[in-house]
Amino acid sequence: MSSSNSPCAACKYLRRKCTQECDFAPYFLPESPQRFANVHRVFGASNVAKLLKELNATDREDAVKSLAYEAESRIKDPVYGCVGLISMLQQRLKEIQHELHAAKKELSSYNLNPQTMQYLLTHPGTVI
Amino acid sequence: MSSSNSPCAACKYLRRKCTQECDFAPYFLPESPQRFANVHRVFGASNVAKLLKELNATDREDAVKSLAYEAESRIKDPVYGCVGLISMLQQRLKEIQHELHAAKKELSSYNLNPQTMQYLLTHPGTVI
Repeated sequence: MSSSNSPCAACKYLRRKCTQECDFAPYFLPESPQRFANVHRVFGASNVAKLLKELNATDREDAVKSLAYEAESRIKDPVYGCVGLISMLQQRLKEIQHELHAAKKELSSYNLNPQTMQYLLTHPGTVI
Repeated sequence: MSSSNSPCAACKYLRRKCTQECDFAPYFLPESPQRFANVHRVFGASNVAKLLKELNATDREDAVKSLAYEAESRIKDPVYGCVGLISMLQQRLKEIQHELHAAKKELSSYNLNPQTMQYLLTHPGTVI
């Protein structure tokens, strides 16, 4: 049963009585009905209940958050879900690593000794 | 029905007859039984079937691949699933962007004119 007198979002959605022992109540508050609707649509309530039961109580909140994120991503993008974001991040990381590699190569190519480096920093635009 | 005479991995797992009209057969080949076992465990066969039906036929293979990836990630990491990888990639991207920013700042701080740049490149270790 959630802290208020209302049934939790899961029990309300499933039209069942929300008891003190309800496994969903701590993670599916009545004021966030969409969170349960999403995970139920994508994973199914029984799969979510089974997963939560297998976890330590301290891990359940994080697990529900990640399930809710996955479910919302799958509803927004039914083909790729949050795997689409993984591909996008991996691609972006590759590009930035490439840029960083080029910048470091350029820096090292000057092969500046500390004295020259100091001089150039304090005398911008020096022509040798 | 899969291309071979064996039932597809889904029908074999669910112990049912695999017919010509089987929605799973093209994506769950008998030689990859784990793929179906994983998505069934995490999403449930009926949720997967429903999702596939709502997609264009050309998108279904990609959808099954992303579902299989999510399912495998959730089995390996029941708390965070593939959302753990998203957090890790976002963190790594932030670090590399920071490094790139620093490298670019260092490059621009030299404020080298083209003639000096050319000289330093061809005369490494120059002391001014």
